[in-house]
Amino acid sequence: MVAPQEFIQFVDDNTDNFINRLAEAVAIPSISGDATRRPDVVKMANWLNNQLQRYGAKTELVPLGTQVLDGKTIDLPPAILGRIGDDPKKKTILIYGHFDVQPAEKGDGWNTEPFKLHVDKQSGKMFGRGSTDDKGPIMGWINVLEAHQKLGIALPVNMLFCFEGMEESGSEGLDDLIASEAKKGDKGWFRGVDAVCISDNYWLNTRTPCLTYGLRGIAYYQITVSGPGADLHSGIYGGAVYEPMTALIALMSKLVTQDGHILIPGVYDGVAAADADELQVLFHIIHHRYYAQLDPLNHSKKYEDLDYSVADLESAAGGKIANSTEKTTVLMAKMRNPSLSLHGIEGAFSGAGAKTVIPATVHGKFSLRLVPPQTPEDITKKVISYVESEFGKLNSRLTMKIEYLHGGKPWVADYNHWSFEAAKRATEAVYLQTPNYTREGGSIPVTLTFADNLGVNVMLLPMGRADDGAHSTNEKIDISNYIKGTKLLGSYLYEVAEITQTKA
Amino acid sequence: MVAPQEFIQFVDDNTDNFINRLAEAVAIPSISGDATRRPDVVKMANWLNNQLQRYGAKTELVPLGTQVLDGKTIDLPPAILGRIGDDPKKKTILIYGHFDVQPAEKGDGWNTEPFKLHVDKQSGKMFGRGSTDDKGPIMGWINVLEAHQKLGIALPVNMLFCFEGMEESGSEGLDDLIASEAKKGDKGWFRGVDAVCISDNYWLNTRTPCLTYGLRGIAYYQITVSGPGADLHSGIYGGAVYEPMTALIALMSKLVTQDGHILIPGVYDGVAAADADELQVLFHIIHHRYYAQLDPLNHSKKYEDLDYSVADLESAAGGKIANSTEKTTVLMAKMRNPSLSLHGIEGAFSGAGAKTVIPATVHGKFSLRLVPPQTPEDITKKVISYVESEFGKLNSRLTMKIEYLHGGKPWVADYNHWSFEAAKRATEAVYLQTPNYTREGGSIPVTLTFADNLGVNVMLLPMGRADDGAHSTNEKIDISNYIKGTKLLGSYLYEVAEITQTKA
Ligand SMILES: [Zn+2]
Ligand SMILES: [Zn+2]
Ligand SMILES: [Zn+2]
Ligand SMILES: [Zn+2]
Repeated sequence: MVAPQEFIQFVDDNTDNFINRLAEAVAIPSISGDATRRPDVVKMANWLNNQLQRYGAKTELVPLGTQVLDGKTIDLPPAILGRIGDDPKKKTILIYGHFDVQPAEKGDGWNTEPFKLHVDKQSGKMFGRGSTDDKGPIMGWINVLEAHQKLGIALPVNMLFCFEGMEESGSEGLDDLIASEAKKGDKGWFRGVDAVCISDNYWLNTRTPCLTYGLRGIAYYQITVSGPGADLHSGIYGGAVYEPMTALIALMSKLVTQDGHILIPGVYDGVAAADADELQVLFHIIHHRYYAQLDPLNHSKKYEDLDYSVADLESAAGGKIANSTEKTTVLMAKMRNPSLSLHGIEGAFSGAGAKTVIPATVHGKFSLRLVPPQTPEDITKKVISYVESEFGKLNSRLTMKIEYLHGGKPWVADYNHWSFEAAKRATEAVYLQTPNYTREGGSIPVTLTFADNLGVNVMLLPMGRADDGAHSTNEKIDISNYIKGTKLLGSYLYEVAEITQTKA
Repeated sequence: MVAPQEFIQFVDDNTDNFINRLAEAVAIPSISGDATRRPDVVKMANWLNNQLQRYGAKTELVPLGTQVLDGKTIDLPPAILGRIGDDPKKKTILIYGHFDVQPAEKGDGWNTEPFKLHVDKQSGKMFGRGSTDDKGPIMGWINVLEAHQKLGIALPVNMLFCFEGMEESGSEGLDDLIASEAKKGDKGWFRGVDAVCISDNYWLNTRTPCLTYGLRGIAYYQITVSGPGADLHSGIYGGAVYEPMTALIALMSKLVTQDGHILIPGVYDGVAAADADELQVLFHIIHHRYYAQLDPLNHSKKYEDLDYSVADLESAAGGKIANSTEKTTVLMAKMRNPSLSLHGIEGAFSGAGAKTVIPATVHGKFSLRLVPPQTPEDITKKVISYVESEFGKLNSRLTMKIEYLHGGKPWVADYNHWSFEAAKRATEAVYLQTPNYTREGGSIPVTLTFADNLGVNVMLLPMGRADDGAHSTNEKIDISNYIKGTKLLGSYLYEVAEITQTKA
C-alpha cells in the first residue's frame, strides 16, 4: 500500500459524508434522453462543476451546441473539462465520467423512489438511478479530491477531468470536443496527458475486481424486404404471392447457427485464437484465488478458490442458457470473440393477439459484435455480399435492401502498461485480490475516441459489480464497492506516481 | 329476366333516392371497435330497424349482452331479426348483413370525410366508410323492399333478416343468437328458411360479377421461445448464450418455402386436386367472355374476351409479387389451396432505429388458411408435432411452446343448388354476364355458423368490386355496382321463385 494511511482512514471516517454526496447527486434526475429533464442535466453539470471547484479544480463548462429531441431543438448539456495540478514532474491522468442517467420511474418496477438514494445498511446496498452508472464512480473521484484537500496533502499526479451529460444518449458533441481539445495540444485542456482512466463499467461477477482492457466493436444492420403496395390480408393473398416476411425470415435464419457460429463467409478472417498471454488472463479469471479473510493480528491468510463459473453468467442472464459448459469457451464468447444477434423485425405484426396480415415491408435488425482485426467497414462488405447472394437464391420477386445502420471499431489496450500495473497494485492493496483482466462485450465508444485522439493508454477501472443493474430498475451500488472504490481510485493515483518514478 | 320490368324501372328512376339512403347510412359512424362510438352503432341499429319496418318487415332488436372494451363493460349493439312474408307456397330466403364498420379518420389518408358519402359522378364512385362493407349491400336489400312497397307488388319469396353490429369486432354474441334461434325451429325467427344469402364480399376483379361458394378456414398459431430472465444486452451476452430470436427465426424459416409450399408433414393430406368440375369453374374465370355492349335495337351482342390475369392480382396487391405466371395456379392458390403466412414477432425489438437487445421472450405468429378436408383440430396436431420436433433438432437450452390461438373450419357450398342457379340467372339478366364462381381465401365465420346451424345452402352474393378497399382508406362502391346490385338482389328473389316452382 503506497497510498498514505491517513487517506485510507479519511475515507473510512467519511463514509456517511460520502454517501450523502452520492445521495445529492442521485437526487438530481439528470436524464439526458428526456427533453423535459434537460434542465436537470444542466443542474447536475453545475452541481458537479461546483464540487470540482470546491476541491481545487480549475474547470470550464463547455457548451456543445444544440440537438433535436422530441421534435424540439434544445441545447445540449455542457461538458465539464477540468484540471488539478500542473507539475511537470508528475504524471497526468485524464478521468472520464458521465453525469447523465437512464430514464427511471417508480412505476417501472422500482422498489423505492429512483431519484432518492435508498441506503439499505442491512444488505449493504444503495439503490438509485445513477448510483453505479455513473454517479457513484464520479463521486469516488470527488471523494478522493475532498480527502486530499481536507488532509492538506498534495495529489500524487496531475488530474484532468472530462465529464459529459449525454453518454446515455449517444454522447452527442463529445467526440468533436475531444478531437478539438486534442488538436490544441499544449494549448488545450488535455495538455500533458499520460493515460486515461474511465470508471464506467462493471466487474465480471460480484466478487472480483477487474481491470478492463478491451471492448468489442459493433456493426448494426437492417435488411428491408418489400413487395406489396400495402399490408395484405393473408386470406385473400396467402399462397398466391411472395411474402416479404417469408423471405426476411429465411435471410435472418442464414446469419448465425443456434450455437452462435456466424455464417457470413470471411467474417472470422484474421481473428486470432487466444495466445498464451491471453489464455493466462482467462486462466486467472477462472482459477482466481482470493484472500477470503485477512486476520490483521496473526497475518495469516485464508485462500479460497473462486472459479468464474458458467453459473455466474446464467444467474446474471436469469436462465440456464449458456451455450457451452466450458468456462473458457463462455468467457471467450463474452470477451473476445465476435457474435451476431437477431434483434427483431420492424413493420411486421408485433402486438399481442392474432392479426392475419401479410406485412408489406419488413425490416430485420441484427448486429455483430466485432473484435480486432474486424472493422465495421470490412464486415459490412462481407455482410452485404452474403445477404445479397442469399436473397438471390430465394428466387422471389420481392425487393431486398441491406443497410449498415451504425457501428464502431473494437478496442484493445496494452494491459502491461504502467497504468494497468498501477491499478493492479491498487486493487491488491485495497481488495487483497489480484484483479481479473477482462475484455467486455459491449462498446463504450468514448474509449476509442480517447485512444485514437490522444494516443495514450486507456484503462477501464470499474467500481461496481456485475449485478448492479445499470440500466434496469432498482439500480444499486454496494456501499463496500463505493467506499473501497474510493480508496481504489485514490490508491491508483499513488501507484501511478510510484511506478512511473521507478520506471522513468 | 323474370323480375318485373317495373321493378327494374323503379330502381333506375330512384337512383338518387337510393344514393341518399346510402349517404344517410354512411353518415352514422357505427364503428364497433371503438367504445366511444357504441352509441352510433346503436343509432345505426335503430335507423336500420326503422327502414325495415317502414317497408313492411316485422322486426326485433335483440340484445346480445355485454362486452369489455377499452377496459369498460358496455352493452353489445343489438342484432336485428326480421321477416317479411309467411307464405308457405313461397321459398324463404335469409339475408345476412352487418351495419357496423371499420374505424376511419380523415387523417388516416382519406381524400374526403369518411363518414360523409362523397358521390363522384365523373368516376362513378361513391366514397365513404361502410359504402361497400357492408352498408351498400344492406341498402340494396332495403331498396328492393321500398320498390316493392311503392309499386304495390308482393315479394316473390318470404324474406328473413339477420343484421348485426359487431361483425368488424368478431361478431360477438351472434353465434349464440343464431344457434338458439335455429334450435327454436318453427318457434324461432328462422322458421322455414330455405337458403341463406350473404352479400358481404367482393368480385374477384373489377369487371365480373361473382357467386362465392367457398371460404378457406384458418388456424392461427403462436410459437413462444424463452430463456433469459429479462432482455439481455447483446454486447454483454452475445455469443455466450442461446438466443430466443435465433431459435424462433430458425423455426419460422422451416414452415413454408418461398414459393408458398407448406413444409409441415401431412398438411396436404386429403386435399384433392381440382376435379373436372372445379377446373371448369376456373376455366370460366380465366376465359370469361362478356357482352361488352348490348345494342337494344338490333339485339346484336358484342363479345369481348376477358381473361382473369395475374396482373389483376398484382395490381390489387400493389406489387409484381405473384408467385406464378400461371393464371390457374394463382387462382387456385387464392381460392382453393391451403397457405401459410408469417405475420410477425411479438416481444422482439419492433421499433425504428437500432437497439442492441437480445429479447428474452419472443412470440412468432403464423397462420394457415385451410381447405376441406383440413380442420383446425387435425392441422394443429401436425403443426405442434412438427414444430416440437424441429425445435428438438436445434438442440438449444431454450424453452419453446407452440399454441393454437384460434381458427375456423373451411366452408364449401354446393354451387349446383337452386339458390346459386337463381343468382346466376339474375346476374346474367342484370349484368349480361355469366358470373364467376369463386372461392375466397379469407374466412367469414358467420357463413359456417349459418350452414352448420340451419343445414341449408348458403351463398355469398357480392355487390362490390375487388378494388373497393373495404378496410382501407377511401373505401368506395361504384354507383353502377350499387344500382345494378340492387337490381341483382331483387332479380335473385324472382329467379328463386321461378326455379323452385319449376323444380319443386
Ligand atoms: Zn455509464
Ligand atoms: Zn449507462
Ligand atoms: Zn363486411
Ligand atoms: Zn369488413
